[in-house]
Amino acid sequence: MNSPIHEPAPLQPGTLRVTPIGGLGEIGRNMTVYEFGGKLLVVDCGVLFPEEHQPGVDLILPDFSPIRDRLDDILGVVLTHGHEDHIGAVPYLLRLRQDIPLIGSNLTLALVEAKLKEHRITPYTLTVAEGDEERFGPFSLEFIAVNHSIPDALAVAIKTEAGVVLHTGDFKMDQLPLDDRITDLRAFARLGEAGVDLFLPDSTNADVPGFTAPERAIGPVLEAVIQKARRRVIVASFSSHVHRVQQVLDAAHANGRRVAFMGRSMVRNMGIAADLGYLRVPDGVLIDQKKADDLPDNKIVYMSTGSQGEPMAVLARMANLEHKIEVGRGDTVILASSLIPGNENAVYRVINGLMKLGATVVHKGNAKVHVSGHASAGELLYCYNILRPKNVLPVHGEHRHLVANAELAMQTGVPEENIILGEDGVVIDLRDGVATVVGQLDLGYVYVDGSTVGEITDADLKDRRILAEEGFISIFVAIDPQTGRVIVGPEIQSRGFAEDEAVFDAVKPQIVKALTEAAENGTRDTHAFTQVIRRTVGRWVNTQHRRRPMIVPVVIEA
Amino acid sequence: MNSPIHEPAPLQPGTLRVTPIGGLGEIGRNMTVYEFGGKLLVVDCGVLFPEEHQPGVDLILPDFSPIRDRLDDILGVVLTHGHEDHIGAVPYLLRLRQDIPLIGSNLTLALVEAKLKEHRITPYTLTVAEGDEERFGPFSLEFIAVNHSIPDALAVAIKTEAGVVLHTGDFKMDQLPLDDRITDLRAFARLGEAGVDLFLPDSTNADVPGFTAPERAIGPVLEAVIQKARRRVIVASFSSHVHRVQQVLDAAHANGRRVAFMGRSMVRNMGIAADLGYLRVPDGVLIDQKKADDLPDNKIVYMSTGSQGEPMAVLARMANLEHKIEVGRGDTVILASSLIPGNENAVYRVINGLMKLGATVVHKGNAKVHVSGHASAGELLYCYNILRPKNVLPVHGEHRHLVANAELAMQTGVPEENIILGEDGVVIDLRDGVATVVGQLDLGYVYVDGSTVGEITDADLKDRRILAEEGFISIFVAIDPQTGRVIVGPEIQSRGFAEDEAVFDAVKPQIVKALTEAAENGTRDTHAFTQVIRRTVGRWVNTQHRRRPMIVPVVIEA
Repeated sequence: MNSPIHEPAPLQPGTLRVTPIGGLGEIGRNMTVYEFGGKLLVVDCGVLFPEEHQPGVDLILPDFSPIRDRLDDILGVVLTHGHEDHIGAVPYLLRLRQDIPLIGSNLTLALVEAKLKEHRITPYTLTVAEGDEERFGPFSLEFIAVNHSIPDALAVAIKTEAGVVLHTGDFKMDQLPLDDRITDLRAFARLGEAGVDLFLPDSTNADVPGFTAPERAIGPVLEAVIQKARRRVIVASFSSHVHRVQQVLDAAHANGRRVAFMGRSMVRNMGIAADLGYLRVPDGVLIDQKKADDLPDNKIVYMSTGSQGEPMAVLARMANLEHKIEVGRGDTVILASSLIPGNENAVYRVINGLMKLGATVVHKGNAKVHVSGHASAGELLYCYNILRPKNVLPVHGEHRHLVANAELAMQTGVPEENIILGEDGVVIDLRDGVATVVGQLDLGYVYVDGSTVGEITDADLKDRRILAEEGFISIFVAIDPQTGRVIVGPEIQSRGFAEDEAVFDAVKPQIVKALTEAAENGTRDTHAFTQVIRRTVGRWVNTQHRRRPMIVPVVIEA
Repeated sequence: MNSPIHEPAPLQPGTLRVTPIGGLGEIGRNMTVYEFGGKLLVVDCGVLFPEEHQPGVDLILPDFSPIRDRLDDILGVVLTHGHEDHIGAVPYLLRLRQDIPLIGSNLTLALVEAKLKEHRITPYTLTVAEGDEERFGPFSLEFIAVNHSIPDALAVAIKTEAGVVLHTGDFKMDQLPLDDRITDLRAFARLGEAGVDLFLPDSTNADVPGFTAPERAIGPVLEAVIQKARRRVIVASFSSHVHRVQQVLDAAHANGRRVAFMGRSMVRNMGIAADLGYLRVPDGVLIDQKKADDLPDNKIVYMSTGSQGEPMAVLARMANLEHKIEVGRGDTVILASSLIPGNENAVYRVINGLMKLGATVVHKGNAKVHVSGHASAGELLYCYNILRPKNVLPVHGEHRHLVANAELAMQTGVPEENIILGEDGVVIDLRDGVATVVGQLDLGYVYVDGSTVGEITDADLKDRRILAEEGFISIFVAIDPQTGRVIVGPEIQSRGFAEDEAVFDAVKPQIVKALTEAAENGTRDTHAFTQVIRRTVGRWVNTQHRRRPMIVPVVIEA
């Protein structure tokens, strides 16, 4: 692994080229480019959320460089489902070429259209459903129902002269889902019997033994918790998890409570889901939040966002008493959600805060209020055995997930040499049932920060990490370059270093002395004077404080 | 909760005052002050490790302010065991008064002495063992064996005229521990029959149902993994976990492998543990790391630190190929450790890195290679039923853990009004079997950063967080205050904001214009000119970039 970078040779006729440019080595920014006969088909176009070593970054996009010069060759973008890690980067792709057709299910397209509206883009769309077959140039697509933690998810079989590829998108195999729409194993079987040349399965839960519990198991737990609740109930979950919200609505209704949606994305997405018939709202159960506040405490359920401890979301604001709904003794808060790695401290801070206010907090650590949206190892084994794919490229996971998925493939008899453990930018050519790694592109992370895309670099993030760890000291002087005499300054500013600016009084004479000496020794240029200040202050701060703040000298010749 | 700050009334004769100044609301910096008859006894003096919202902080100390003016009244510091969260702040306390006696078990004192040596402090110590009784002024102490994830841990019963307090320190109730030294429930029973007026139990695992699995269960798993390993084995764990290391030594020995300790703290602590007889080293099993590299790959086990993904520790450096031991295909890495919340991303980065190099990685997520050191709910119930304490103050935990422990106390019949849910600085008076909250001190976090203690404030950390999120822009100008005319500058520097400094060319004329206008409107003082720059640059950066970097203007009158 850690493949050396090498550009692939030009694509030969009759060969399908597969290039995942996101989602291999990370959970997020899923995007795969398929090329045949000079035409491109993209599957998914998602974002990745930053980790703590990427401070201030809003989103991370796939690196579009492999397709940037070939935008006109793109026949369409298939969106497997409506989660951010599969659709979040669409606005940034459409900024490059606005009329790329988007292909997806009814709900998926409704969610991406709502997102694009905020970016003032009206996309070209083609709505498809399970069972549909569509032809785009050399690509024949067959769409297959899969079950996931958002309704209306689709796998896509991509058929070209070079063979058949099955791209699952995210999925699990809940056998009794709320909407009775199961992952279509009959279609998988039919494809398998005809021959699947390359299989790209979801790896998220490949290292989890057994089977993902059914979503339906949560309903009775929610109902029991709500029944026991003495005062208000606040449920936090993901704003796209229609079936989870459905179960909250049903549990509230069964207990004679009404439900108010809170948080912009929750209100928006559930409006879409209800309009399109994915969310069945029991008569009269919904109530506007403003009116909800007038109901007796034991007649209301607030359905909110913020289950990951996001500081600006409803739940964290409640925990900090910064929200008009003042949580107190007797209230019950349910976090009906996963705990995404990296969010633990933030989530526990929210839980501790709510408990200090007197609330009872129910979460996946103490009750069965969450199940995953991804197939566990047991389910993936079913898939491999039904499909018997010739080649496998595990996708959608960190390296450890991809390895676990590869091991499952091997256990079902896929030869090790037919399993590709790749990373973003791996280039795979498929022809005559043989999949070969033919290149490794050099792709980077593209950071969105505020309205800027790609302006913030890894160097900036390194600076930010240093600033975060140690703060900075900036030193301004205007000097006479001939004598090194300081005419204005040294003026010292610092942030994140020490409260008391008087601490710098000790170093100012040292700076003046060092500059004069440097000039006496023949130094004349500004950059060299800058280095003198950097060394002087650096040495002082290290010996006096054992610290390494960023040192930012500014020298002006006067 | 979130008790209002109020100073307690002066302590009355015959009353015991209990003031936890760390460990309530956090896992770390455990420290409790007991006062009777004008004299103080301290139990534990630990550090807290910073979270991601405290960037650059090395350690967090308890706020010593309640005892700072009463150092001469301290009769001694009882250290229940040798973990950092119980002994790590001792050097900082002894800097205030070097001859405060330290009281603890053989191993605990050896570890704290090694730590103090680095601070060039030789402490006064009194070694105690289970069964010992010692009198310090008005305090009679009885030491009781408890089992934990470090050997030689002690609970302490503190007896005064005001009643009997049992302070457990960290403990669990492994019934078949490696050293056969079990938590002494006979002593608990004896105390319980005589009457325990206040019980301060470890809350860490109070929200974990059932019983903590025995340490002994790990040995066979380690042995099987090492037996299956084809090439090198690297085990990472905590450098004070003597029994875990013991099991690694035994498993290596059983498989004909030798063991090399790696990492400064691992080498140091295991040296101490072996010298004192807590670690039994099978004949000839240990080998110096330099010589180990000459052994065949299947004859060596490296025992290292870095199980929490610490970037500078051995394991992370191996994962990044920055260590001279180059991990490769066929090597096996075992993380025989917990995953402390907040460390997930760092640990998974290390795991992914090692797997990319071809190593097999075994960790608590895929094998039984770790058990906790703390009593689960089931064990705590035993304690409550054996002790039947009159009053309970759950300690050692975040609020959610304290609440869980309080609920266990209630389930065993402790009246709710006799259970105190406190936070750091709560002041409790005990007399005639009645425990009363009499005050709440206003205590802060004391940050250690480099060689500075308490210089970094929460305001500095807020600055650091802003710098981390957005970087900074500093603007220097020298102006004529009469006309607002810019004589030198504007000179603009930024870090963490944008790579290209040319971006600021647009705002420089705006700054010059704004300053001139301000002077025309009568502005004369430097501070007001500073505000003009801040507003101008802030507005520009917000409208042009939708960002909010820290803006640091410097105005000098020339």
